[in-house]
Amino acid sequence: MTPTSAQIVREKLSQAVSLLERYDFDLWLTFVRETSLTKDPALDLVCPYGLTWHSAFLVDRGGERIAIVGRYDVENIESLDAYSRVVGYDESIRPALTDTFRRLGPKRIALNISRSDPAADGLTVGMRRFLDEILAEAGVQPDQCASAEALLASLRGKKSPGEAALIRQAISTTEQLFEEVGQTILPGVTEKELAGFLHDRVRELGLDAAWDSNFNPLVNTGPDSAIGHAAPGDLAVEPGHLVHFDFGIRQEGFCSDLQRMWYVLSPGEPAPPEPIQATWDAVRSALLAGAEALRPGARGWEVDAAARQSLLDSGLPEFKHAFGHNVGRMAHDGGTVLGPRWERYGDTPSGVVEADNVFAIELGAKVEDRGWIYLEENVLVTSQGVEWLSTPQETLWLVRP
Amino acid sequence: MTPTSAQIVREKLSQAVSLLERYDFDLWLTFVRETSLTKDPALDLVCPYGLTWHSAFLVDRGGERIAIVGRYDVENIESLDAYSRVVGYDESIRPALTDTFRRLGPKRIALNISRSDPAADGLTVGMRRFLDEILAEAGVQPDQCASAEALLASLRGKKSPGEAALIRQAISTTEQLFEEVGQTILPGVTEKELAGFLHDRVRELGLDAAWDSNFNPLVNTGPDSAIGHAAPGDLAVEPGHLVHFDFGIRQEGFCSDLQRMWYVLSPGEPAPPEPIQATWDAVRSALLAGAEALRPGARGWEVDAAARQSLLDSGLPEFKHAFGHNVGRMAHDGGTVLGPRWERYGDTPSGVVEADNVFAIELGAKVEDRGWIYLEENVLVTSQGVEWLSTPQETLWLVRP
Repeated sequence: MTPTSAQIVREKLSQAVSLLERYDFDLWLTFVRETSLTKDPALDLVCPYGLTWHSAFLVDRGGERIAIVGRYDVENIESLDAYSRVVGYDESIRPALTDTFRRLGPKRIALNISRSDPAADGLTVGMRRFLDEILAEAGVQPDQCASAEALLASLRGKKSPGEAALIRQAISTTEQLFEEVGQTILPGVTEKELAGFLHDRVRELGLDAAWDSNFNPLVNTGPDSAIGHAAPGDLAVEPGHLVHFDFGIRQEGFCSDLQRMWYVLSPGEPAPPEPIQATWDAVRSALLAGAEALRPGARGWEVDAAARQSLLDSGLPEFKHAFGHNVGRMAHDGGTVLGPRWERYGDTPSGVVEADNVFAIELGAKVEDRGWIYLEENVLVTSQGVEWLSTPQETLWLVRP
Repeated sequence: MTPTSAQIVREKLSQAVSLLERYDFDLWLTFVRETSLTKDPALDLVCPYGLTWHSAFLVDRGGERIAIVGRYDVENIESLDAYSRVVGYDESIRPALTDTFRRLGPKRIALNISRSDPAADGLTVGMRRFLDEILAEAGVQPDQCASAEALLASLRGKKSPGEAALIRQAISTTEQLFEEVGQTILPGVTEKELAGFLHDRVRELGLDAAWDSNFNPLVNTGPDSAIGHAAPGDLAVEPGHLVHFDFGIRQEGFCSDLQRMWYVLSPGEPAPPEPIQATWDAVRSALLAGAEALRPGARGWEVDAAARQSLLDSGLPEFKHAFGHNVGRMAHDGGTVLGPRWERYGDTPSGVVEADNVFAIELGAKVEDRGWIYLEENVLVTSQGVEWLSTPQETLWLVRP
């Protein structure tokens, strides 16, 4: 049986208590409202439900876990059996939250604010203003608050046993769906039809897309299909085409993010042409070089550099994105990015890889007049290196029309 | 044929240009990244897609509409045919965004920041810090930026023709589903089973829940069921029960939010008992009193007060929530709240009702030993008053087992 969402919240809250110690905070606060409109991504770690009114979730270094929520939510939060104290209110959260700060008297408070990591940047400017008033009333000085980004990178990134089980399940389902869609790749079938097949299956199975379903799956057939974030189009599969999918699902709250490739043989053709095979080999070697560098203690940019350099050494140009990203509740799950130190990644490539992280690793290269070869696998970081969670694609899958 | 998402974006961008004039801004900026993690609710108004890298959407009072996005998104944004200029970048959004501020030289910039209105508070603290660096580089002073909340309340709240059509469609689908689920209300059926019926139908029809599906629909049968935000449970329908649903869907991006009620007759009972009927009548009168007060120019709290006072005049206690809220892309769509001036609503009850707003209006009261009577309808504000978008429930629907 898969773990319940309440179990996962209990696991994450215990983890949070020990991380407060490690990162020298006394209190971690997640402060939200109307989460259907603006949802702090950290909310999932502390509460499996959406919330309407101002709600505060506090974890104290001493082990206390407090939820302050609107009166109609008290029963739901109590039923999680995850909080040592659940406080309800009617007109304003201010009195209960102020009292809680006063009672706990934290010296250092971690807030969900980050210049670099979107997964740690859920507090909005308007909510921060309201919080500052409450903190002032409780006698907390502004310099007692700091970014929770390091704490959150570990909390979100180090998967609990329950989380890892759910990610494995999502990956396994995705692989099954790749097998199904592979049967439908035939000359004449369009990118849109292939995407439609997976959309239908995702709906039938009661799953969600791991990202915007306009671009999930991405499907590319042949040399004229734009790689990147373009929606599947009316191009049809032909003999001699490379067919590429980038696809991920969310199942019971956890995601997969994988890419798979087929080659459609032309009549009489025994195997993919040499330039395709050569690029495949180089791309796969670069993926393995990156995976080899992926171990606890490595910096994100170091892992990226290993993959990037391997591709360059094969005489291929470098890819214009990061080699890897955390996968969890989201396909792009924040925290350490296995990427180059470009401004758009902020400080996240300087983050350190930790055991129990789950990463999607991906890269590719273009074959002249043929299209792109892209690979993406999902791996779990262990004390020794990586465990492959997906069954790595070792050769191009062949379609014989 | 229903309007496409690109059409709606074009409608909203035109509306935004005229609102810049009205609220005396030169430029409105929506600034996002990794929208699967932190999504500014205003993004839907300017772009129908999720985005990974830093992305900026700018609307200028002169009519220019500019999108600055990662290279892989350029094609998708161009295909909307909504932006006069689409700029792509590789390593950082900073140079292009700085140049754009310099070129346009805006005196007053509207940002998505709001203490009161979650729908106008999508800019996170970390993104604000990055933006402040870019603004400083472009020579913009901090006091040239102000909250877009008034602009956004109008832009989001005043539905374009395309938006209104999609909301009508969602409401009509919801009413059809109420009719279907009504056929399944029989003694012995549990709340969970009734919720499950609607979950299945929502999935089969390719719809989404308008809010967290753990609590959508809410289902309550009989006097022992907790009203509020509690998930449907194992209580079974019995003769003499009031059966209550709070249910909303999202169809092609737009929501409904309705409540409906049945009464299960006991053997030989010709009609609901008098105390139930009396409360029904009082609740319905109060709903109508609120609807009567709902017209352009009214303040949110004035509309709430009309409904609240009507219920008090009937000798019933006041409800512990707002009378109404905007409905649109979300069931709780931000902007003016038809609610009391309690702190948890911030300034939103002081907002002014405008023509073309769509509101859910709702209230209820308890019948001793019987449970709650609750009504919720969706209405469009016109120059004259309200047009009922849902077919108002005028009497309790009777189940004759």
